[in-house]
Amino acid sequence: MPPDPAVSATRTALRRVLSSPEAESYRSVPWVVACSGGADSLALAAAAAHEARHFGTEVRGLVVDHGLQVGSAAVAERAVEQLTAIGCSAQVLAVEVDGPGGPEAAARRARYAALRAERPAGSPVLLGHTLDDQAETVLLGLGRGSGARSIAGMPAVDPPWVRPLLGVRRETTEAACRALGLDPWSDPHNVDPKFTRVRLRTEVLPLLEEVLQGGVAESLARTARQLRDDADALDAAAAEVLRRARTPEGLDVLALRDFPAAVRRRALRDWLFAEGVGELSDAHLRAADALVANWRGQGGPALPGDFVLRRAHGRLRVETAGRKPPNG
Amino acid sequence: MPPDPAVSATRTALRRVLSSPEAESYRSVPWVVACSGGADSLALAAAAAHEARHFGTEVRGLVVDHGLQVGSAAVAERAVEQLTAIGCSAQVLAVEVDGPGGPEAAARRARYAALRAERPAGSPVLLGHTLDDQAETVLLGLGRGSGARSIAGMPAVDPPWVRPLLGVRRETTEAACRALGLDPWSDPHNVDPKFTRVRLRTEVLPLLEEVLQGGVAESLARTARQLRDDADALDAAAAEVLRRARTPEGLDVLALRDFPAAVRRRALRDWLFAEGVGELSDAHLRAADALVANWRGQGGPALPGDFVLRRAHGRLRVETAGRKPPNG
Repeated sequence: MPPDPAVSATRTALRRVLSSPEAESYRSVPWVVACSGGADSLALAAAAAHEARHFGTEVRGLVVDHGLQVGSAAVAERAVEQLTAIGCSAQVLAVEVDGPGGPEAAARRARYAALRAERPAGSPVLLGHTLDDQAETVLLGLGRGSGARSIAGMPAVDPPWVRPLLGVRRETTEAACRALGLDPWSDPHNVDPKFTRVRLRTEVLPLLEEVLQGGVAESLARTARQLRDDADALDAAAAEVLRRARTPEGLDVLALRDFPAAVRRRALRDWLFAEGVGELSDAHLRAADALVANWRGQGGPALPGDFVLRRAHGRLRVETAGRKPPNG
Repeated sequence: MPPDPAVSATRTALRRVLSSPEAESYRSVPWVVACSGGADSLALAAAAAHEARHFGTEVRGLVVDHGLQVGSAAVAERAVEQLTAIGCSAQVLAVEVDGPGGPEAAARRARYAALRAERPAGSPVLLGHTLDDQAETVLLGLGRGSGARSIAGMPAVDPPWVRPLLGVRRETTEAACRALGLDPWSDPHNVDPKFTRVRLRTEVLPLLEEVLQGGVAESLARTARQLRDDADALDAAAAEVLRRARTPEGLDVLALRDFPAAVRRRALRDWLFAEGVGELSDAHLRAADALVANWRGQGGPALPGDFVLRRAHGRLRVETAGRKPPNG
């Protein structure tokens, strides 16, 4: 009997990511699956257990217990039982959640640190993020508005993290679990409207799908993937330009000037960051770039951290506000 | 007495776009303002009339009457009266709206054609699109999901079109009209929910602003501007790579292979388009690119229009489906 289409979809997605050049070293080492017990990571673990046989490797399920919700230990134990039934070895990692930035950020930090520490050297950690998670991430990024990177979503391969399901809908992972007789956990946080992500999922995306007549989640995920490649290409170009423009006397304006604005601004951003200038807005970078591309003798912009950017003798230099060498 | 802040904002925005290098030739020629009689274009016309004196030029208001709504001639006459009161010369252009693609697209075509035809040679046509229009355009593009270009919004300068108000909120143009004693027309189409754009404006954007706690429209407009620069840079890089990779025997794989994916895929897209291949999806381009960057002897993808892409002897060629030369 052929497998259920949803089960096939998760397996195909996993094979596809493992066949990409950047995942080459992961094909024959043990795989770790980070499993919450929810439908996404359970369907992923099942796909991994199936595919591991073809690749001649094995799957280790890691279930992080953050200890934040009542009954979390029982949820984790139940996830271990199901992972074992699927054919994975499985263990619970109890972590302590604290530190700055609110409980969500702290839980995330603790989870990723525990997974990283527990993973066998060289192994990938497979994460169950779906196309729906990706679409929500893009919408979250839209509110930040700091360019391609902010809406480029999550990468499929970012060693040791691998996200095979970024092209698979959440409803598919749920259907896969049903077809396999698995009983996923429904995290009550996933429907709690106090979380921004939940409101994006339950209110914003359905409205956008209605108004734009469908296809929005897929479109956001596709856009994210393309913008990630765009940002990679432009960052690489900027790094090369910056390498050539650095001089002991400052940044060589002529070595920057003839490149496109998108490359110049990235080079300036990276250079200013290396010079110790803090959070730069789009407006700061445009003012800095005007000294390169549209210079008519104007003074340079003030920058965060009591710095000022100056152009003199064909070089840009970051100085502490106050000093004023002659322009030239 | 200093001018009202909203009035100042529209004037500053106009001066800023005219000071950009790409608008250099527009500084001392007559300016055309396309005016619907609505708040955006009326506020723009007022700013233009004021600034024109400093630049030693003059403003001609053009009011397009599409003849689609009852009373459109009276609306156009009223716009001419107000333009005249502001100090612009003004005339009505009555256009005939027909042709393919629905009444909105046809009206847009007729409007732009009439403005282009009526503009004095060398003059810019100033358009009143605001930051809010830009944010709506980005959201519309998100539903298409074909990369940076689809969410890059409208350009500020795209000769002969100039959009000085892309960084100005709609509420600012309304406040400027009030401060100047102007009486803008409220187009009933602007609140008719049968238009996708109206639902984005009145339902989606307010919900996104609430869920993401503000700043979304500005963020979308900022993102659009950055992505436009990114797309320009990558398109230019792709054109240069393509120029070097073309050979009489097809596209040279080695001349493409070491460039980033974002550049390779754009070069392939432009080359395939020039070869007569029709609408290409993201999946088509990724399959085509796999022949360059991840080739393990696989056959090439079928492409729209009964074509197939083949790799042989280190060259890519587009062939009609059916012919099969040896791989190599």
